Amino acid sequence: MLERSIIQGRGFKNVEENGRITGFQIVLRNPNYRGTAASLLDGVDVTVDGEHWESHVPLWTLQGKTHTLESLRATTDVRWQLDEYATITVPKPGGLSAGVHTIEVTVYLRRPYFPPAVSRSAFPASAKATIVPPVPAGGIRHAVSTYSYSGDIYTSMSMEDVMADIADMGATGIEILGEGNIPGYPTPDPAWIDNWHAMLERYSLTPTNYGSWIDTAMWHDRDLTEDEGAAQLQLDLRLASQLGFSSIRPKFGVTSFQLDPHPIWEGVVERSLDLAEELDIVICPEIHSPTPIKHPVTQGYIDFIERTGSKHFKLLVDTGIFQTAAVDDGHEGIEVEDGKRPAFLEPLAVPMADLAEVLPHVHFIQAKFFEIDENLHDLHVPWEDIVKTLQDAGWEGWLSSEYEGRREPYRGREQVRRQHALVRQLQAKHG
Amino acid sequence: MLERSIIQGRGFKNVEENGRITGFQIVLRNPNYRGTAASLLDGVDVTVDGEHWESHVPLWTLQGKTHTLESLRATTDVRWQLDEYATITVPKPGGLSAGVHTIEVTVYLRRPYFPPAVSRSAFPASAKATIVPPVPAGGIRHAVSTYSYSGDIYTSMSMEDVMADIADMGATGIEILGEGNIPGYPTPDPAWIDNWHAMLERYSLTPTNYGSWIDTAMWHDRDLTEDEGAAQLQLDLRLASQLGFSSIRPKFGVTSFQLDPHPIWEGVVERSLDLAEELDIVICPEIHSPTPIKHPVTQGYIDFIERTGSKHFKLLVDTGIFQTAAVDDGHEGIEVEDGKRPAFLEPLAVPMADLAEVLPHVHFIQAKFFEIDENLHDLHVPWEDIVKTLQDAGWEGWLSSEYEGRREPYRGREQVRRQHALVRQLQAKHG
Repeated sequence: MLERSIIQGRGFKNVEENGRITGFQIVLRNPNYRGTAASLLDGVDVTVDGEHWESHVPLWTLQGKTHTLESLRATTDVRWQLDEYATITVPKPGGLSAGVHTIEVTVYLRRPYFPPAVSRSAFPASAKATIVPPVPAGGIRHAVSTYSYSGDIYTSMSMEDVMADIADMGATGIEILGEGNIPGYPTPDPAWIDNWHAMLERYSLTPTNYGSWIDTAMWHDRDLTEDEGAAQLQLDLRLASQLGFSSIRPKFGVTSFQLDPHPIWEGVVERSLDLAEELDIVICPEIHSPTPIKHPVTQGYIDFIERTGSKHFKLLVDTGIFQTAAVDDGHEGIEVEDGKRPAFLEPLAVPMADLAEVLPHVHFIQAKFFEIDENLHDLHVPWEDIVKTLQDAGWEGWLSSEYEGRREPYRGREQVRRQHALVRQLQAKHG
Repeated sequence: MLERSIIQGRGFKNVEENGRITGFQIVLRNPNYRGTAASLLDGVDVTVDGEHWESHVPLWTLQGKTHTLESLRATTDVRWQLDEYATITVPKPGGLSAGVHTIEVTVYLRRPYFPPAVSRSAFPASAKATIVPPVPAGGIRHAVSTYSYSGDIYTSMSMEDVMADIADMGATGIEILGEGNIPGYPTPDPAWIDNWHAMLERYSLTPTNYGSWIDTAMWHDRDLTEDEGAAQLQLDLRLASQLGFSSIRPKFGVTSFQLDPHPIWEGVVERSLDLAEELDIVICPEIHSPTPIKHPVTQGYIDFIERTGSKHFKLLVDTGIFQTAAVDDGHEGIEVEDGKRPAFLEPLAVPMADLAEVLPHVHFIQAKFFEIDENLHDLHVPWEDIVKTLQDAGWEGWLSSEYEGRREPYRGREQVRRQHALVRQLQAKHG
């Protein structure tokens, strides 16, 4: 699906020629209600952060070929279809800085079915969009969780759009929710699986972590047994393996406000370790606010690692535990009563020393966040401290964007780009 | 694609059992970020126009089977996937009245990974949606133009969604824009054409009118020749025929503010009449504001019909010509300068007597409109007069919804339902 905005967030980037940045590109969808012969295009005004380029200056890439406005006007077999993009290339030596920019465009189309005096129609559009810098070499690997696009997936984004967004920002890993993103779960159509692998190849993406659930309170009258829990985990391990994932996060039902997992967790995992080893998938329980690192729940997982000596059970850290400011944007399904926010949205502010201490056991990090402003300032999560801690330790796992802020359409897509721009700037600063 | 709103506009309807209306249905998408075992569902509160049904009352249809809340809780193999609908059936003898209703729902889901005291999560949602009454027998046939969904198609709606919406409101015809809705125009992939026909069959739809363009000012340096214009029209005639359409509306470039068509029109059409006859497709020029019926342009078309005696050239009337109030909602690509609105948005208020007089020549009507309020009152177009005129004349062609109001996401979809509800009520009143 195309983005609703005429100016697409995906595709906004600097252009490199022979090792030098010569300009930038903006991707547009056709603002009219019909496709048009390209000869009827009459230029595009572009203004970025107040700097202006006249309508005859930008180059147009349509249906795989790049034209000047002059050559576009003379074409006889080029079209701008409603379901196709136009890529607008604007010359600007050095390009645009990493971060958020204000873009304004006016697309000019001639419409011969309007009276000649008014047939040159102006279609103005504006947007904020983010230039994401390249990934610094070595160290942290960059992924995105489909969770970031909750509400967008299946309403304005297909799985292919998710992958295209991830690849466009130069990230290389994709994290999914098994029970969210696999049509026909737990028995997807083999054609869906084939297409999944074909798309991974097309967008050069690596499957990273697969989110699963073990719903211990699945029925009203009794809890899930250890047998049933193990069957669920093993079903998801096999499915994750079929799809190429290297870790799985089983979310067990909990029994307390401190998120103590249901007591079957240990038996369920222990019975599944042989399969995890066979499939080479790491089982990762999630350390999630309000549970900090220095806590019996986390310690229980570390004890399990030490007791079993398994290389296929490690920790997954959700960066919500490092939050230093509260989030009051609301959360689906959570009612805030008497102004009292739920514990997991309170700032837990786990110290970096705790992260450093536990990092050898950490396989995967969900880069939970809620809002990054136009100056690439995160309102809640201390990315500079986190990135420095990871880099100082030489940690080389996946950092997977998990946007959890307001679910306005397209907001997650733009916020994830901002997070990648921010984290990469910090990597470069401390690298 | 699912609609963004948890409460889907499509699927809101009364339920008939053994010839009696026993209740109504609301279609929902899953409000959570993951799919869920149906045993974790804990009911849905429903309120429509203030009338309330408790959460245990509605029936749930998931994955093709209908359950009470009690039987749903006991299921072991039923799921509510993120990409699947739940249909909620509410008992109400006599059902809901035709027209716009205020719907509020709260879906309850148990989430075992939340602390037990708060694991029953409430997901509230509300929407305005429209019950469309059945089509009165005989007379006017009901269609919808894809133009109604401009901006939605390719961003939140596939062609299949368009067809599903049309079928859901009991309309039976689809009108398209060739250069807007055919990927790869003018040479679509044969697989796309096969799928087009398969979808028509699935949704029991008849292709009606195909919008085409003859861009006489396609190039800067010269006008299209009659040869080139005829080639364009004949290309579209063949494509329309392949897709099963029975009429085509070529939009010629114009030469004046009164929308005088470019002089090649007559030669282009005349050279194409044999092909139109061979394919049995009626070529229909569009009578569009600011051109009224009593006008040399319209008269020119009637003269052509009389001179050629062709049964394959008739008129298409756009109901914007009957507008009695101005529209100031803006229009893509049109700049309003000094508060002066463009002529085609001024109310032309063509008298019904003119329509009655020309009706024998009218093959197709584009039911242009801009806004219908919650009381099914059209702010601009006098539907009662139009419907009465068509019914008095026994006119039996297609009336095809062409929403042209504000292009807010999903607005066209809801407005089209309102128009069908309004027109059918008027048909029943005057029938």
